[in-house]
Amino acid sequence: MIASDPLPSWRPGEIKSTILNFVQQIITPGSPDYQLPAERIAVFDNDGTLWCEQPIQIQIFFLLDQIKKLPVENPVLAAQQPFKALLENDRAVINTFTKKEFITLFLGTHTGMSPESFMGNATDWLDTSKHPRFQQLFKTCLFQPMRELLDFLKANEFKNYIVTGGGMDFVRAIAEEIYDIPAEQVIGSTSKVKYQLVDDLPVLTKLPELNSFNDREVKVENIGLHIGRRPLLAFGNSDGDLAMLHYTSAGEGKRLALLLHHDDAEREYAYDRDFKLSPCIEALEVVPQLPGGVIVSMKQDWQKVFPFEG
Amino acid sequence: MIASDPLPSWRPGEIKSTILNFVQQIITPGSPDYQLPAERIAVFDNDGTLWCEQPIQIQIFFLLDQIKKLPVENPVLAAQQPFKALLENDRAVINTFTKKEFITLFLGTHTGMSPESFMGNATDWLDTSKHPRFQQLFKTCLFQPMRELLDFLKANEFKNYIVTGGGMDFVRAIAEEIYDIPAEQVIGSTSKVKYQLVDDLPVLTKLPELNSFNDREVKVENIGLHIGRRPLLAFGNSDGDLAMLHYTSAGEGKRLALLLHHDDAEREYAYDRDFKLSPCIEALEVVPQLPGGVIVSMKQDWQKVFPFEG
Repeated sequence: MIASDPLPSWRPGEIKSTILNFVQQIITPGSPDYQLPAERIAVFDNDGTLWCEQPIQIQIFFLLDQIKKLPVENPVLAAQQPFKALLENDRAVINTFTKKEFITLFLGTHTGMSPESFMGNATDWLDTSKHPRFQQLFKTCLFQPMRELLDFLKANEFKNYIVTGGGMDFVRAIAEEIYDIPAEQVIGSTSKVKYQLVDDLPVLTKLPELNSFNDREVKVENIGLHIGRRPLLAFGNSDGDLAMLHYTSAGEGKRLALLLHHDDAEREYAYDRDFKLSPCIEALEVVPQLPGGVIVSMKQDWQKVFPFEG
Repeated sequence: MIASDPLPSWRPGEIKSTILNFVQQIITPGSPDYQLPAERIAVFDNDGTLWCEQPIQIQIFFLLDQIKKLPVENPVLAAQQPFKALLENDRAVINTFTKKEFITLFLGTHTGMSPESFMGNATDWLDTSKHPRFQQLFKTCLFQPMRELLDFLKANEFKNYIVTGGGMDFVRAIAEEIYDIPAEQVIGSTSKVKYQLVDDLPVLTKLPELNSFNDREVKVENIGLHIGRRPLLAFGNSDGDLAMLHYTSAGEGKRLALLLHHDDAEREYAYDRDFKLSPCIEALEVVPQLPGGVIVSMKQDWQKVFPFEG
């Protein structure tokens, strides 16, 4: 039996029981749903699932801060679109951007350096930058119930992966510190990298060219590439996660496909279909019909949202 | 201190001491070369490093067996080159193939199925197919000293990865059973895969198009993609591994870059520059000059080669 309460920030009820029972059945030898530790793969979206993605994704805040250096570093580029609009905080232009365009811009403007150098920059920024509404460091704007779930799964020999539409190196820079997930268990959008010798020493260099935009069905294709096993549990919050939830749910035996619904304007934000950068429309309809499909209500199912709440 | 002898199949001497001392320094808190468990990444080539690759790589034997079914399954294709030459065992033609051409052919002829189905086929074949000289199952033709090294590293909280020029799914089919390395720690050559719905259920399907030929500098680029950390230890046996060995060696602090030299015709094979599919020429010259670079002689440094030896 699972001792004490591994999920204190989850309110007692059907959803919490479903999660606890699922893990109990997977880990109990002799249970019809028992799985060996090697099979215990769990995949998590990041933006809006593990941490806050409002009013815009945290890495877009990072991008905007980086672009502020442009007028000094590269005045010619700074005068061109889309940089001009971003520098002038021109919402009319910014609001026309899709998530893929932001990611492409993001990957395109952090190039010519090694992944390690980029990760150093990202870590420095995350060490000091705060969320405009909560006035807390971005890196503390993660969801406490999700961190408890990650820890609970890890303690039961699950291997937790992040499968994010965000930039892989950006998330790798922080995943170990805030989620206890090592870099190699972060799958995300990537630019191409090139092996080259600099001063006779081999390094990898990030190129401006997009390699993989890790969204929708590409998330599943990259799960195949990086993991090679169908997950037992998947957790997302948008239509970009639906393929991954569907793929997980369709495996043999017991699976769990969880969708977080942001319905708590008071403690976090309430949004779904209208969030242009990452809408949740189809997923809210489809997930309840999937085997093991579960909608999680932030408002109802979470006792506590952020770790910094009293 | 490391108790008893974790590497009984390695002969006492300089090479064995170098490996034991390296691990001791990495794992000892307070040592100047101490590394946290999260940093302890070790990467291994597969063909010719972990298991025998002579007279041709094991997956080429698999390919040749699969192609024998062609005259029944696809007579038109069977009459075309290169299949005709392979079916007729026409060495004059076969010997003109490069490794990349074989891998491309290999990936191109195992398509239209899920990675899981393919891995099932590979496992079945490996369960029954024998090496022509040793008359032992191919899957037992692994190098006993290497298996001991993998176990020793794992016991000391290293994470072992295979970084192979061979097909990723072929090696994933067997890596857990014979090396205790899970699928997600196998990086290899890949075809593209596509997410699709079959009978309304989501599956991945292997496509004939090459995605990545994991050789030379691409091995390092894929280490960046899959791991995101510079390894502490790398082990290879050919020029295809040199970039990975160089990249590993060039990291800060203590590193080990090991090259296996096949110089034992009696117990295994003696070859280096003349093995067209995977020559070892430049690596034999460069590795001894790298920091932490070590040439391992099969003949001198290994007490035992295969697990099936008396």
